[in-house]
Amino acid sequence: MKTHTNRQFEAELRLLKERIIFMASQVEEMIAQTMKSLVTRDSLLAENMIKFDHQINALELEIDELCLRLLALRQPAGSDLRFITIALKIVTDLERMGDMGVNIAERTLELNQEPPLKPYIDLPNMAKLVQGMVKQSLDAFVKSDLEMAQEVLRKEEMVDQLNVQILRELLTYMIEDPKNITRGLRLIFISKYLERIADHATNIAEMVFFMVKGKDIRHLEKTLIDQTTLLSKGTVTE
Amino acid sequence: MKTHTNRQFEAELRLLKERIIFMASQVEEMIAQTMKSLVTRDSLLAENMIKFDHQINALELEIDELCLRLLALRQPAGSDLRFITIALKIVTDLERMGDMGVNIAERTLELNQEPPLKPYIDLPNMAKLVQGMVKQSLDAFVKSDLEMAQEVLRKEEMVDQLNVQILRELLTYMIEDPKNITRGLRLIFISKYLERIADHATNIAEMVFFMVKGKDIRHLEKTLIDQTTLLSKGTVTE
Repeated sequence: MKTHTNRQFEAELRLLKERIIFMASQVEEMIAQTMKSLVTRDSLLAENMIKFDHQINALELEIDELCLRLLALRQPAGSDLRFITIALKIVTDLERMGDMGVNIAERTLELNQEPPLKPYIDLPNMAKLVQGMVKQSLDAFVKSDLEMAQEVLRKEEMVDQLNVQILRELLTYMIEDPKNITRGLRLIFISKYLERIADHATNIAEMVFFMVKGKDIRHLEKTLIDQTTLLSKGTVTE
Repeated sequence: MKTHTNRQFEAELRLLKERIIFMASQVEEMIAQTMKSLVTRDSLLAENMIKFDHQINALELEIDELCLRLLALRQPAGSDLRFITIALKIVTDLERMGDMGVNIAERTLELNQEPPLKPYIDLPNMAKLVQGMVKQSLDAFVKSDLEMAQEVLRKEEMVDQLNVQILRELLTYMIEDPKNITRGLRLIFISKYLERIADHATNIAEMVFFMVKGKDIRHLEKTLIDQTTLLSKGTVTE
C-alpha cells in the first residue's frame, strides 16, 4: 500500500506534468496567433502576442519553482529525478520558443508598414508543422513515448527542407529588385525563427530518448544513429 | 568540524564548477578559432571547429551526469540545490553556443568558395565582445558575482547595436549589386549567430541574479528593471 507521502509526491508530479503541457499549449497558441497576425496583416494581434509572452515567462518561473520544491522536499531518485531535471531543461526550451514568437510578431509589425511582398503559403505550412512538433515533443515527454519523439525528429527534417526552399524563393525576389531586399530579409528571419522553434522541439524529443533509454542520443554520430535507425537527424540542429 | 560526507560533497561541487568553467573556456576558444577561420579564409580550420563541437557535446553529457549524481547521492538543499539546478540549465546554453560555432564554421566554408565581399572589421570585434560575455557570465556563476553578471548585461546592449550596424552595412552592399546578396546574407547569419551566443550568455547572467538574490529577474518588465538600475536590458533577448 502506498504511503501518504508517496501519494502526495505522485500528485505533485502529476501537477508538474499538467503545467508543462499547459505551457506547451500556450506556446502552440502563440505560434498560431502570430502567424495569423502575419498572414492577415493584423498589427493589433501581433502586439497582443508580444504581451502574451509574459504569461509564458511566468509559467517558466512557476514550473521551475515546482521542480525545485519537488527536488528539495521529496528528494526523488532514479527515473523521477531524471524526469524532474529534464523538466527543468524543457521549460527553458519552451520559454525560448515564446521569445521566437515575439520575434515573429516584431517582424510582422515591420512588414505591415509596407505592401506585402508575396502571398504567404510556405511559411504558414511550416508554422503548422512546427506547432505539431511542439505538441508532440511535450506529449512524448510526459508519456515517455519514444514513437512520438521519433515523429518529431522526422518532422524536423521537413522543416529544414522548407526553410531552405523559402530562403531560395525569397532570394529570387531580392535579386530581382533591390526594393524587395528588406522585406525578403524579414521573411527569411521569420522562417529562421520557426526553424529555431523546431530545433527546441527536437532538443526536447532527444531528451525524451535520454530519459527513457537512460542513455543519451543527443550527441550520437549521424552514422551511428542511422545504423540504429532510431533517428534520421544529425548532431547539430540549430 | 566537517564530516567526511560534507567534505566529499564540497569536493564534488568544486569539480562541477571546474568542469563548467572548462566547458566555457572550450566554447570561447571555439568562437575565437571559427572567427579566425572566417577572417583568414582557412577552410581546414573551419572544418576542425565543426569536429571540435563533439568535445563540447561530450562535456555537456559529463556535467549533466555530475549534476544528477550530486542530486541523487547528496540530496542537497537550499543554495546548493539552486546552484546545481542552474548548472543543469547553463550547460545546455553552453552546448548551444557550440552549435552556433558550428553554424559560423559552415557559413565560413560557403563564403570561402567565393571572393570576399569586404574586409571583416565589425564581425571580429563583435566576436571578441561575445567571447568576453561567455567568460564573464560563467565566472559570475561560479563566484556568485553580481557585478560581473551586470557587466554581461551591459555588453549585450553593445552586441545588439553592433548587430544592427552590421546588418545595415551589409544591406547597402546587397542593394548595390544582386551578386552580393548571398554573401551578404551569409555574413548577416554569422552576425546573428554571434548575437545568439550573446543571448545565451545573457540568459546565464540572469540566472546568476536569480541564484544570488533568490528571486527571479529573468522576466521583469523593462521599466521595473530600469527603476532598480540593476539592468539595462528588457525581457526578450533572442
